[in-house]
Amino acid sequence: MVKASLFLAAAFVVTPALALWPQPRNLQTGSSALKLASSFHITTTIHNAPKDLHDAISRTSSFLKTDKLGRLVVGRGSSDAAVVSRARALPSLTLSLSKGAKINSIAAEAHKALDSRDEAYMLHVPADGSGATMTANTTLGLFRGLTTFSQMWYAYGGDTYTIDAPWIIQDSPAYPYRGLMLDTARNFFPVTDIKRMLDVMSWVKMSVFHWHVVDSQSFPLEVPGFTNISTLGAYSPSSIYSASDVADIMNYAGARGIDVIMEIDTPGHTAIIHEAFPEHVACPEAAPWATFANEPPAGQLRFALPDTAKFTADLLAAAAKMSPSKYFSTGGDELNTPCYDQDVPTQQQLQATGQTLFEALSNFTATTHGALAAQGKTPVVWEEMALDYNVTTLSNETLVMVWISSENVAAVAQKGFKVVHAASDYFYLDCGAGEWIGADPNANSWCDPFKSWQKSYTFNPTANLTEAEAALIQGGEHLLWTEQSGPENVDPIVWPRAASSAELFWSGPGGNGSMALPRLHDVAYRMRARGVNAIQLQPEWCALRPGKCDLTS
Amino acid sequence: MVKASLFLAAAFVVTPALALWPQPRNLQTGSSALKLASSFHITTTIHNAPKDLHDAISRTSSFLKTDKLGRLVVGRGSSDAAVVSRARALPSLTLSLSKGAKINSIAAEAHKALDSRDEAYMLHVPADGSGATMTANTTLGLFRGLTTFSQMWYAYGGDTYTIDAPWIIQDSPAYPYRGLMLDTARNFFPVTDIKRMLDVMSWVKMSVFHWHVVDSQSFPLEVPGFTNISTLGAYSPSSIYSASDVADIMNYAGARGIDVIMEIDTPGHTAIIHEAFPEHVACPEAAPWATFANEPPAGQLRFALPDTAKFTADLLAAAAKMSPSKYFSTGGDELNTPCYDQDVPTQQQLQATGQTLFEALSNFTATTHGALAAQGKTPVVWEEMALDYNVTTLSNETLVMVWISSENVAAVAQKGFKVVHAASDYFYLDCGAGEWIGADPNANSWCDPFKSWQKSYTFNPTANLTEAEAALIQGGEHLLWTEQSGPENVDPIVWPRAASSAELFWSGPGGNGSMALPRLHDVAYRMRARGVNAIQLQPEWCALRPGKCDLTS
Repeated sequence: MVKASLFLAAAFVVTPALALWPQPRNLQTGSSALKLASSFHITTTIHNAPKDLHDAISRTSSFLKTDKLGRLVVGRGSSDAAVVSRARALPSLTLSLSKGAKINSIAAEAHKALDSRDEAYMLHVPADGSGATMTANTTLGLFRGLTTFSQMWYAYGGDTYTIDAPWIIQDSPAYPYRGLMLDTARNFFPVTDIKRMLDVMSWVKMSVFHWHVVDSQSFPLEVPGFTNISTLGAYSPSSIYSASDVADIMNYAGARGIDVIMEIDTPGHTAIIHEAFPEHVACPEAAPWATFANEPPAGQLRFALPDTAKFTADLLAAAAKMSPSKYFSTGGDELNTPCYDQDVPTQQQLQATGQTLFEALSNFTATTHGALAAQGKTPVVWEEMALDYNVTTLSNETLVMVWISSENVAAVAQKGFKVVHAASDYFYLDCGAGEWIGADPNANSWCDPFKSWQKSYTFNPTANLTEAEAALIQGGEHLLWTEQSGPENVDPIVWPRAASSAELFWSGPGGNGSMALPRLHDVAYRMRARGVNAIQLQPEWCALRPGKCDLTS
Repeated sequence: MVKASLFLAAAFVVTPALALWPQPRNLQTGSSALKLASSFHITTTIHNAPKDLHDAISRTSSFLKTDKLGRLVVGRGSSDAAVVSRARALPSLTLSLSKGAKINSIAAEAHKALDSRDEAYMLHVPADGSGATMTANTTLGLFRGLTTFSQMWYAYGGDTYTIDAPWIIQDSPAYPYRGLMLDTARNFFPVTDIKRMLDVMSWVKMSVFHWHVVDSQSFPLEVPGFTNISTLGAYSPSSIYSASDVADIMNYAGARGIDVIMEIDTPGHTAIIHEAFPEHVACPEAAPWATFANEPPAGQLRFALPDTAKFTADLLAAAAKMSPSKYFSTGGDELNTPCYDQDVPTQQQLQATGQTLFEALSNFTATTHGALAAQGKTPVVWEEMALDYNVTTLSNETLVMVWISSENVAAVAQKGFKVVHAASDYFYLDCGAGEWIGADPNANSWCDPFKSWQKSYTFNPTANLTEAEAALIQGGEHLLWTEQSGPENVDPIVWPRAASSAELFWSGPGGNGSMALPRLHDVAYRMRARGVNAIQLQPEWCALRPGKCDLTS
């Protein structure tokens, strides 16, 4: 169907069509009005389609009825009413898998290794009153296409319509890793908030939820066999993700095309484990904290001790068993050496074995990553593990997250590691909200200024890389560290800002911010229509008058 | 009662007691546990007490039952359980007015001129099981005392208790003007959001809601006799404050001890009036907007024209009639002269009358302020009217809001005007969230960085002022301009940050931020308990361990 229609392409006007986010990589639109028939329905030709695809169809059908997004122009679509009243009606959308495609659930496809995921889809919405069709090689591709389809429509009066029919879309992402990181340790987020975040992520085709679940301040994760850590280390009994909560989140994410990469940051960022296992933690709550940690409280795993290495490996393995993902993050950032300098058991062990601290770290890493490998997991680490600690035991399959500065990407790629962009200078959502340590009236956040959507949107994922190095880039993510966040502000601090990287890593770099802004308004208005507290990017006066508030207008 | 109890003062430990915000100006606490009796009730000796006082008592009683705020320590009050189980029970709180005091509603007291408001109260909560008493000269004072009383209690198990009884408080504000400004023109806020904001303001004893209700982008105010302006100038029919909405807001605020100062900013910031009255607006939507306005769209009242001056005076008078306040703001900021340079009617009028532009502005101001005076209103203006435009017709009663820089305060005071602190370098809540004009990836907000609570908390209201000039300071306000805000983020962008100025202007300057932080956590947790999305200021680990996250700990 789609291929045949491509013959019509020459007659189409190629426009940066509004409303779609991320922008499809191949998009042709027309200039005809088309409305959804009152009997419009979505069907599939797939025999025994998986439940999560049926659920996705139901959610899409519901959005088509409830979004009721007026077009973002003065009058909110009143000027379309006449042409829409005469428009053809679209009777249906039919989803099909390519011939011979294996029928997996969306979740199963989303849990594949990054380089094996197939998210491509083709969508044809004719303007002549015949049915729309969508094809893909996977249910995950169909899900991405449904997401696109749900963004194509505006509402006015009783009609749900487009004025850009027909549509022909051939789409697939530039990068497989399009992520969002949430820290649930500095402050706790109930499951319902995480699910809402996963919903929004799916609406902009994000593919990875990087769950920084625990840290020095609290340990809200119930790990089978290690439940004392959360019993003693969570903020309260109601601030714990139970094993069934975790399974619930994994399932919810998977059904929305999202892989969950859990992180248990080690050996730093582990102070709270001291409450349950004091024998494994050096310098717990040592003062002044600034000498022993980048933020309070101090406390790090005694990784040089064989017992602690085994304890950590067992903990990571038990946590990894909770996740269907191929990936698991062991963290590895911000190791503080003065903490170990004054830790007697660590110093005794180093002396007894003749190891340096970082030699011991290499051994520790071999042990913990070995335990993950036994679970079939690929390790994920922060950049220091690749660049700063002389760790000799990292597999080249390791995903390395570059956070300190985007300027460090080339060094990681030069070492042959796969890279996930997570640079604080582009993607940190917490920057620019003041300092939270103490009462200094003139202190700002360490990563000031605020990282605007415009900033992240202009990021170049392959800057300063050779072609071979560029091939190591898996994509990137926005990150929310939650020293100053909780359920109260998670929506406005994340949305629609994080959508900028979702488009960057799906549609590819080089997008024009001024051209993108009207579409970003659209997706933000749609988020609000779906109950998410996405912020206003501009006065509504500007949102309804594309381009009029640009500095050159 | 209270005076007699003062004899006990020597036995008390004077501590920066947690939970109260703003800090009472005279506070003595003990070290006894005391819990609310199950039959605890609040009564008043006032014959025919006004309805808004009865309502305030009901709300306070409700908060005492529903806040259920655990003490912010590890264990959340579990360590208090034993002593609380043996504690005396407080049977009642009795409110009285001073002998001979006139019985007005809270609202009537809140609507008095700033220098006539009496918000003082005395509160005695004995530890011996006898009833608590509160006295004041006004119902407004009693309301402030009720607010204090509602913050004194923690919950654990089934008990509502304090461990700091007895309490003796003599309290009154350092400044009468403790305000919050909300711009409802860049983006619209439904009445319910404004009411929630008024609630929170009252919880920290704020006294003025400065309502920047209209601006160049939209005119959401239905002014009797001028309804075409809102019909044509609001974002939508549902984005209009009807006359009854306004009355509702005024009543709601008044009952919570809050005076509403409405602002219709003139002659700049009025572009949208062009939709209904094109004859009164110069350079409407002129391009490029940056030449003709500080932000889009351009468009300003043709104030040099007598017809426009009369139109504006009539509009302001009609709007002023909607407000019980003694004050009304006519704005007067950011006048753009190139707009008038190219406006033919303005230039013809100036030539015909031989006036300069600013001479015409003085005449316009005399007309508009005269119309307000006829309504019994004192005018409020932005600092440019006092400092930059050579306006010779400002009454010395005028309240001048200093916004561009706190360094301009002295110049305004030197001219003998009353001053309201509203400086962007301390009190602007929108700073530091990126630039909203265009897509420049490296642009930041004009008033970067973010103004933290620590910053505003350290403001000195009388810096560089003589004693006579200092006497002109009425107080100050936090301000939220809403180019990038709406109902979605109003709670987290305002709270608890704006509480810092509420304490500054009630308790007086010089507070120690590190000492204040635990109390600010308390008030923020209480806001959340009452359904307000106040942000987390720190990881919960820090909130439960006062001082431990200070940089020097």
